[in-house]
Amino acid sequence: MTSVPSTPLLDTVHIPADLKQVEDRDLPQLASELRAEMIDAVSKTGGHLGAGLGVVELTIALHKVFNTPDDRIIFDVGHQCYPHKILTGRRERIRTLRQEDGLSGFTKRGESEYDPFGAGHSSTSISAGLGMAVAADLQGSDRRVIAVIGDGAMSAGMAFEALNNAGALDARLIVILNDNDMSIAPPTGAMSAYLARLASGRTYMGVREFGKKLTAYLGKTVDRAITRAVEHARGYVTGGTMFEELGFYHIGPIDGHSFEHLLPVLRNVRDNQQGPVLIHVVTQKGKGYAPAEAAADKYHGVNKFDVITGAQAKVKPNAPSYTAVFGETLVQEGALDDRIVAITAAMPSGTGVDKFADAFPARTFDVGIAEQHAVTFAAGLACDGMKPFAALYSTFLQRAYDQVVHDVAIQKLPVRFPIDRAGFVGADGPTHAGSFDTGYLAMLPGFVVMAASDEAELKHMVRTAVAYDEGPISFRYPRGEGVGVEMPERGSILDIGKGRIVKEGTKVALLSFGTRLAECLLAAEDLEAAGLSTTVADARFAKPLDEDMIRRLAREHEVLVTIEEGSIGGFASHVLQFLAREGLIDGGLKVRPMVLPDVWMDQAKPEAMYAKAGLDREGIVRTVFAALGTAHLTQRA
Amino acid sequence: MTSVPSTPLLDTVHIPADLKQVEDRDLPQLASELRAEMIDAVSKTGGHLGAGLGVVELTIALHKVFNTPDDRIIFDVGHQCYPHKILTGRRERIRTLRQEDGLSGFTKRGESEYDPFGAGHSSTSISAGLGMAVAADLQGSDRRVIAVIGDGAMSAGMAFEALNNAGALDARLIVILNDNDMSIAPPTGAMSAYLARLASGRTYMGVREFGKKLTAYLGKTVDRAITRAVEHARGYVTGGTMFEELGFYHIGPIDGHSFEHLLPVLRNVRDNQQGPVLIHVVTQKGKGYAPAEAAADKYHGVNKFDVITGAQAKVKPNAPSYTAVFGETLVQEGALDDRIVAITAAMPSGTGVDKFADAFPARTFDVGIAEQHAVTFAAGLACDGMKPFAALYSTFLQRAYDQVVHDVAIQKLPVRFPIDRAGFVGADGPTHAGSFDTGYLAMLPGFVVMAASDEAELKHMVRTAVAYDEGPISFRYPRGEGVGVEMPERGSILDIGKGRIVKEGTKVALLSFGTRLAECLLAAEDLEAAGLSTTVADARFAKPLDEDMIRRLAREHEVLVTIEEGSIGGFASHVLQFLAREGLIDGGLKVRPMVLPDVWMDQAKPEAMYAKAGLDREGIVRTVFAALGTAHLTQRA
Repeated sequence: MTSVPSTPLLDTVHIPADLKQVEDRDLPQLASELRAEMIDAVSKTGGHLGAGLGVVELTIALHKVFNTPDDRIIFDVGHQCYPHKILTGRRERIRTLRQEDGLSGFTKRGESEYDPFGAGHSSTSISAGLGMAVAADLQGSDRRVIAVIGDGAMSAGMAFEALNNAGALDARLIVILNDNDMSIAPPTGAMSAYLARLASGRTYMGVREFGKKLTAYLGKTVDRAITRAVEHARGYVTGGTMFEELGFYHIGPIDGHSFEHLLPVLRNVRDNQQGPVLIHVVTQKGKGYAPAEAAADKYHGVNKFDVITGAQAKVKPNAPSYTAVFGETLVQEGALDDRIVAITAAMPSGTGVDKFADAFPARTFDVGIAEQHAVTFAAGLACDGMKPFAALYSTFLQRAYDQVVHDVAIQKLPVRFPIDRAGFVGADGPTHAGSFDTGYLAMLPGFVVMAASDEAELKHMVRTAVAYDEGPISFRYPRGEGVGVEMPERGSILDIGKGRIVKEGTKVALLSFGTRLAECLLAAEDLEAAGLSTTVADARFAKPLDEDMIRRLAREHEVLVTIEEGSIGGFASHVLQFLAREGLIDGGLKVRPMVLPDVWMDQAKPEAMYAKAGLDREGIVRTVFAALGTAHLTQRA
Repeated sequence: MTSVPSTPLLDTVHIPADLKQVEDRDLPQLASELRAEMIDAVSKTGGHLGAGLGVVELTIALHKVFNTPDDRIIFDVGHQCYPHKILTGRRERIRTLRQEDGLSGFTKRGESEYDPFGAGHSSTSISAGLGMAVAADLQGSDRRVIAVIGDGAMSAGMAFEALNNAGALDARLIVILNDNDMSIAPPTGAMSAYLARLASGRTYMGVREFGKKLTAYLGKTVDRAITRAVEHARGYVTGGTMFEELGFYHIGPIDGHSFEHLLPVLRNVRDNQQGPVLIHVVTQKGKGYAPAEAAADKYHGVNKFDVITGAQAKVKPNAPSYTAVFGETLVQEGALDDRIVAITAAMPSGTGVDKFADAFPARTFDVGIAEQHAVTFAAGLACDGMKPFAALYSTFLQRAYDQVVHDVAIQKLPVRFPIDRAGFVGADGPTHAGSFDTGYLAMLPGFVVMAASDEAELKHMVRTAVAYDEGPISFRYPRGEGVGVEMPERGSILDIGKGRIVKEGTKVALLSFGTRLAECLLAAEDLEAAGLSTTVADARFAKPLDEDMIRRLAREHEVLVTIEEGSIGGFASHVLQFLAREGLIDGGLKVRPMVLPDVWMDQAKPEAMYAKAGLDREGIVRTVFAALGTAHLTQRA
């Protein structure tokens, strides 16, 4: 089926206000059409499917009951927001999801007034919602604030911090706990087990007892609808749960795919809320699309696919991905050294740690969405002689920055940080770009900071990190596939703080940190063709710098260009600081640092992003010519 | 009383192994002597008093029952560790606490094998302990791991993340929840209220019932001692508490000042532990020293004091502290704009937010030790038109870095960040130094990053932050008192991205970011006396840079020195990047960036630290002379 699905009812709903014209009894039909529309759209764009399918009824019910955009609905981790986007004036653009100049794959304030808070990272919604609820209170406004958060996101400390504060503030916040027992990977952690116990009715409270409690709380407005909802619900818990202890009025679990359960509960909370309320809603990720329901990851993130069969388009790789090379190399090293342990924060497959888990389950730890704990847990392991690899994406390591500083770096503990998704990430956009890690790590005394220029270098760096035991060490590598170089049988141990000259020249020096090395080599061809003898160097280390090599590059060339896929404050800053401190630029060296532009770049294909950032062959050549005052030569020779 | 207290029993205990010779019945005497010794020591050095006094019995009991240093005791926030230091071979150095070359005010791995983990920031101990417990398990070791954590520290998300993971891993970790209902400020948050309910026995379980449960758990070894302990305890809770739901075996609350309660429980847990155990111990902060018990803050941190009267030495300030100026200015502005709200993470007096709280209680939010939530909560407030000031120390803002990036900066939300304790902090040492904020904030697109050069400038910056509504803005200022400049009635609104020339010259330019400006002016005197005409500029902004001013400084001087109390990657990096990009150093400008040295500097008096770092008058002069190749002139002219 390649034609667009027939959606007569959905066609009448352009914005949530249109839902007022839809009868409650017709909402299942609307849900069915919305689901079909969403499946069709994602089959053409790729993106996050399972999460959105799970919240179709919930999204409709929220927009039906509440008065958006005046009332605020905050979706935690925006990738569950596709149905919300379709219902809020963005249906005609839904097939541009995650494309350049298209809709963001997450909620985004700049995109719609119906998106009160952008969320690419998880577990932020309760904090943001509490801020909005308090603002409403201070302003004497009656608007409601609803945070929709998954059970996986509840393992993050900041969600707990927010619950703890909300309960004490007695703010009028509604938290909807969307319990699909499945974030990206199977759930981990005691909280998750607790929610499962709640959902399974271990703490089931009799319907009558619940009805009495709810009547007492809600007062006069309890009607037949809610009584029916109560009777149909799988079970209600209202006594002594963890959320009640934290000051929330706790309703649920209720069936998140049943409008008969959702609507009366939401309406009563809307009309009678006093303090903070938590509604525990049980949903099924991937609901309503058989291939997703059957898949282990419930089609969390998918490529384009065939709607009938569910078969995803295969992207043929030219070379193994950096993630795969990391995972395989860690397994290889792990077989030789049983002190190696791997830690992931709910991203076993995204980081390649799943391979290590298969080989060494007892030495693999998935701590859940809990980066702060992940890093200090690794520090504890390092204290007692283990060799922990805390494998996180660059953007998520930000969440553990103080733990990196205070627990690891100050104590000079040998925690290894493989940093995946360093640099541009394409369709996920600015919330997931890995722009800052070199800056925020290399400023820490004693930290060893590396970047791999290709997949063979990554293999060397894994082994180097295994061998290095004097303090923290990191190595960054991008999303996507390697450059296809020949791979060594086993990685070599690199000399700490030593780079390598890849190509010798005399006039221009290109000093690369990371995978832009390939573009430097291409740029060097162009420069040579223009008569400019060019050296190309692979720095390997931002810290400690290869001072001998950089000194030589500075003394023996007229132009020195540094290039990295990272923000200001990183590799270039360390090079400039060294050159200035040593007086190496006093003599007229033309040094030009090339870093990521100082803007938040929206999603696009990586190649387009490099071009826009100027971090490609043409950009490098342009920079050299500009430095030499020969800008008229910018045509490739 | 200025003589050292008489401590015959304590004199026999040099290391924990000596405790084996002390009878249980003599431990109260030992506690009394340890308390006297600690009070005497802190009366001479100043430091943290209340926390240590509260854990005297607990510390003795732990070292008596467990086999340190092989067993690991991790004190969360090391400032409760003074009794531990006295018992672990450091008694003769205890009167060097927090002095240059003396003992650290926190636990410190490099200082003693009895300090398995350093902790200046709170809430890290469960994560670190879990890492150690897992390491022991993987190594087949029988050693025990005990994390001692205060109730205040439990509000931090990372403590929750660690509990959540520990419960799921079923690791052999012992968590001692030291509930003194008082961290630095009175407790906030729903968790704190929950603990109070537990401690007050709302969920009290009958002694017999508890005895039965414990018997079942501990098996055969329950003896008369534990039965007695059970009978004496204020109450035991073992059913359905939050900690049990998270997978912990939960014992307590028990009286943390009674050896009759502590010893049998600890011994039984030691001998019979299966999975993770949480022991809820109730203590009194400041216990055993009347002035501390009577004080509102329980003598959390004190100056030197008189042991008899408790009167603390008053340090006469020459000028108001930066913290006070911030607090007063925020009150002044808050009276004029009711959209201003203040947020603190358990540091109302440390940040000066207490003044705002007095004036505008409904607009002040103490979220507890929960920096991540603090920042995203502020983001939520900013979304709906409030003007939030999230007042944190530089070092604690690290804990919310991802929230700053993802929730504030990417969304361009106007959250204001007053950053106290920027730069050296003296006695608290490297865990509390504010070294990295300029670097990690100024690398973010769209962030406005300021530093005050004196207390009048701080006043301007508060008002500037109130007025600026286009995105995030920060302003940093150091610990301690201002320079004594005349204060304006009200702050002025500064032009964003504009610095100021303080003194005009022709040969040397000193470009300061922050309070090192005063040293620049002194250095300029020396340079002028040596015949070097010197310009001194106050950058005010690291971002956006005053490019016009810097261009002028670069073009019109032979030497350009930047100076800041921050690490590499900050202000200097932005200046160098700009100069290089524009080709302004190609012509032979001698640019010299002065930043904090790339080491973790131990505690000392700030002036000594500046000298060591070279960030003082002499250091600046030395740098200029070295740049000019006139190093022979380093004698002050």
